[in-house]
Amino acid sequence: MAPDYQLTIDKLLLQTIHRKSRSEIVYGKTRYTWVDFYSRIQRLASGLEGMGVKKGSKVAVVDFDTNRYLEAYYAIPMMGAMLHTVNIRLPPDHIAYTMAHAEDDYVMLRDDFVPMATKIASSVKSMKGVVTMSDTGSAPSLPMMNVKFYDDLLSQSSAHYEFPDLDENTPATIFYTSGTTGMPKGVWFTHRQIVLHTLGSQIGFAGSAPKNRLDPKDVVLPLVPFFHVHCWGIPYGVGLNGQKLVLAGRYDPTTILELISREKVTFSDMVPTVLNMILSQPTLEKYSDALSRWKIVIGGAAFPRELAIRAMKFGIKVMSGYGLSETAPVLSLANPTERHMLLNDEELLDTVLLKTGLPVPLVQIRVVDPEMKDVPRDNRSAGEIVVRGPWFTREYYKDEEKTRELWAGGWLHTGDMAVLDDEGYLTIVDRMKDAIKTGGEWIPSIILEDILMRHPAVSEAAVIGAKDTKWGERPIAILSMRQGQMTNDEGLRIHLQKFIEDGKILKFWIPDRFVIMNEPLPKTSTGKIDKKPLREKYSTILAPI
Amino acid sequence: MAPDYQLTIDKLLLQTIHRKSRSEIVYGKTRYTWVDFYSRIQRLASGLEGMGVKKGSKVAVVDFDTNRYLEAYYAIPMMGAMLHTVNIRLPPDHIAYTMAHAEDDYVMLRDDFVPMATKIASSVKSMKGVVTMSDTGSAPSLPMMNVKFYDDLLSQSSAHYEFPDLDENTPATIFYTSGTTGMPKGVWFTHRQIVLHTLGSQIGFAGSAPKNRLDPKDVVLPLVPFFHVHCWGIPYGVGLNGQKLVLAGRYDPTTILELISREKVTFSDMVPTVLNMILSQPTLEKYSDALSRWKIVIGGAAFPRELAIRAMKFGIKVMSGYGLSETAPVLSLANPTERHMLLNDEELLDTVLLKTGLPVPLVQIRVVDPEMKDVPRDNRSAGEIVVRGPWFTREYYKDEEKTRELWAGGWLHTGDMAVLDDEGYLTIVDRMKDAIKTGGEWIPSIILEDILMRHPAVSEAAVIGAKDTKWGERPIAILSMRQGQMTNDEGLRIHLQKFIEDGKILKFWIPDRFVIMNEPLPKTSTGKIDKKPLREKYSTILAPI
Repeated sequence: MAPDYQLTIDKLLLQTIHRKSRSEIVYGKTRYTWVDFYSRIQRLASGLEGMGVKKGSKVAVVDFDTNRYLEAYYAIPMMGAMLHTVNIRLPPDHIAYTMAHAEDDYVMLRDDFVPMATKIASSVKSMKGVVTMSDTGSAPSLPMMNVKFYDDLLSQSSAHYEFPDLDENTPATIFYTSGTTGMPKGVWFTHRQIVLHTLGSQIGFAGSAPKNRLDPKDVVLPLVPFFHVHCWGIPYGVGLNGQKLVLAGRYDPTTILELISREKVTFSDMVPTVLNMILSQPTLEKYSDALSRWKIVIGGAAFPRELAIRAMKFGIKVMSGYGLSETAPVLSLANPTERHMLLNDEELLDTVLLKTGLPVPLVQIRVVDPEMKDVPRDNRSAGEIVVRGPWFTREYYKDEEKTRELWAGGWLHTGDMAVLDDEGYLTIVDRMKDAIKTGGEWIPSIILEDILMRHPAVSEAAVIGAKDTKWGERPIAILSMRQGQMTNDEGLRIHLQKFIEDGKILKFWIPDRFVIMNEPLPKTSTGKIDKKPLREKYSTILAPI
Repeated sequence: MAPDYQLTIDKLLLQTIHRKSRSEIVYGKTRYTWVDFYSRIQRLASGLEGMGVKKGSKVAVVDFDTNRYLEAYYAIPMMGAMLHTVNIRLPPDHIAYTMAHAEDDYVMLRDDFVPMATKIASSVKSMKGVVTMSDTGSAPSLPMMNVKFYDDLLSQSSAHYEFPDLDENTPATIFYTSGTTGMPKGVWFTHRQIVLHTLGSQIGFAGSAPKNRLDPKDVVLPLVPFFHVHCWGIPYGVGLNGQKLVLAGRYDPTTILELISREKVTFSDMVPTVLNMILSQPTLEKYSDALSRWKIVIGGAAFPRELAIRAMKFGIKVMSGYGLSETAPVLSLANPTERHMLLNDEELLDTVLLKTGLPVPLVQIRVVDPEMKDVPRDNRSAGEIVVRGPWFTREYYKDEEKTRELWAGGWLHTGDMAVLDDEGYLTIVDRMKDAIKTGGEWIPSIILEDILMRHPAVSEAAVIGAKDTKWGERPIAILSMRQGQMTNDEGLRIHLQKFIEDGKILKFWIPDRFVIMNEPLPKTSTGKIDKKPLREKYSTILAPI
């Protein structure tokens, strides 16, 4: 007689709707409350149903971070359909590949992407209908069948749609990771996984240091693209708390700073590159009041200490987080424990906030050697991070071989190399494939990069392994300079020598060569430094010494 | 290849063990860390297994709040056995009834309860073994087979026990509610339910007003007995966070105050009666420093405003919570939202903190009329609270008829009458069965009681319905006086008249009779005022006017 209670995405909104949260969702000139939001997703579901979307349909979204994307995050899975968050930073051919591979039935398409979509349309044979979207208020023209304009779809559809009761194991979302080798791989998640990820990560964020903690009263501006693995879970977490949510559309540092100031933003997530972009704005001083209220979580790549210090000078409260596309994504947060209560800001930074962190609830983390034995917790012995948890993708979509590798031995292999300290804090030292193997020893490229970036002239650093007949591999460093600054090999070696003396690095870690570039280093679709082209160009040119 | 991730109680400890929390568990002179705790529960499980406990066994615990009880909370369910938290405040016959009804296989028995257990032993035919427990360090004598002393069991057992992988739907705990009518009813919960209750309630507690919020750095002293429906989930929540946990044993206000001060306690849960008991200590002023750090959540009965004000005078941060034995128990917490940011302490008290609150994540709350239609959200229309959520008992153990009533129409019927305001805050106005039906109208006894208690002479108040030939029922008030204070009918009527003038109550709510008692009002086993004997004595004696 007691009904089965399923962990489905609609449950995340229960409280927010119950208390009729008057907090707003803000995108451009659009501004409405979470109560309005609920009636909008009912109309969206009703409209999509009219176009043919049903349980099991796959609906792709091609958009920047908009309120319409937020609506799709809820309405599509809540209908029992699957949301494909299309990685818009991939080349068109790769986008076509992911949409064909996912067998998308429908697409919600922003006008900016109409030319791209027209080009790839013939490759996605499963497509049955298109919802066009625009900030202009008028529909872009698209010579296809079953096309509706988003604004019309909502205004013409009923708000009396009743979302169906779903099993918690119903697929909810799919996303393709921008694999650095080969074509993108699909990771997908069920309702249950997303609900548990939301609960676990929210407890994690609420357990951060008092100054960093995500609070129900925060105003949240996500700066991880919506397409990228649930935007780290922020859209679902904000729905659970009913906070004010500010959306940036296409990322532009000037607009972002204006939003932070005007909408009184207090919390954001982002990769280091986005923070660097914001902190490099010449008008930054103008926003110092707003920035001093801002809490940020940095993930997706190591958080360089120098960048953290620059942010802290503006009163920004910084911390690290860690996760993968495969893990929905949150795995760990740099949260303090009862042992760190008396530390000052800089001590806390080095002891806790810059580390990869402690696992969030329900996540089990180990650091293991190639035989899957735990490495010592000495903060020096590196091993691979392997994890278990209730919200990790159970497979790469339609790829048994890669799935077997991912879950070898019943643990999800992150491909990240880390050390553990005695208190259980994880510090990533490298991607497995980025670590440099020299004479039977590992050189963690990330540590070297971080130290190189502490040189006042260096803006970005990438260390890669170059083939070497004697040592197998030797490190070489590729660097971009800050505007108006310059250094040379000698200056860099002197800089590194200090860290050797301090015991931070070893002598044989010093790169055999420094390449200084006149332009920023190449980036991947998620804004991380892309070592692939650097390796192609530089990894074979080093002559044996 | 990805292993099934089950929501089982062992997962709650993952982080705490991973980071080797050095926070202590303190009971009397016993004091050890969460790391020690884990090895102790391994030894306990290993020892219990040696005595015959296996998957599906039912293990009863008869104890005050001790570290041994905490160990049972984890070890027993983690073995796949079921923990029966025996309600030690019931009469021996009722205890025997619950243990026979649950078919308990084993019992962990504190020495204080040996005489009681000896008396009822013959009634519990399923019993296969006993673990005796004592604070004295020596085993009580018990003339039975298969008896082990807890301390010996642990010291003689291996810490290399590996807890089995369990299905999340494995039964974990059972508890018998002290029904005010008839014999106690059993409510039971699975691993999944307890894990989700822990996550949902922890997000709720983390979302409380900044001054009230449960923080990972808090020192927690539970003051709801361990036997009582998971002590509101505190032992599992503290295990998740790895906080310092202080245990009070048998409740004694002097010891409690000493513990709060010595162990720097910052957070407790309790019923109003326990708070009243503590605040009535003559030595209270001595602890004012310690009390000013103390955050408390009050539940189990309405939180009288007068009691809240008395606590606030010592700087204690107070708030209400709400739940039932049937609901594991947390349903709602008096948490503020973005609308209450600018309120001062007293405004916040009346607007939020004294209310029954807002539902915690995943809980759906409605207030309905007898046709299951939602009542208007006008803070005046009363109805029954019905709920859905992922951690509610699916049945009364072996009682189909009562289960049908509990879950009538697919919603769990709380039996509590409440009003809802426009912001979704719930305020309980009465137990369904305590509301007084007079001339076709309801008089909520709790509101009258609260107002009567604002009279300076009144210490406790109970309002019950007395049979009346004209009106069906009429209210009568039974009151106990503060020491050295007195009032009379006239004084009470004048007091109530002010609240009529303020529009808080109606004229026909004024009790027809006031009974002033020279002793405290009778209490139930959970410390609430027990109206049953009062009804028996007073509900029929009122002559028709």
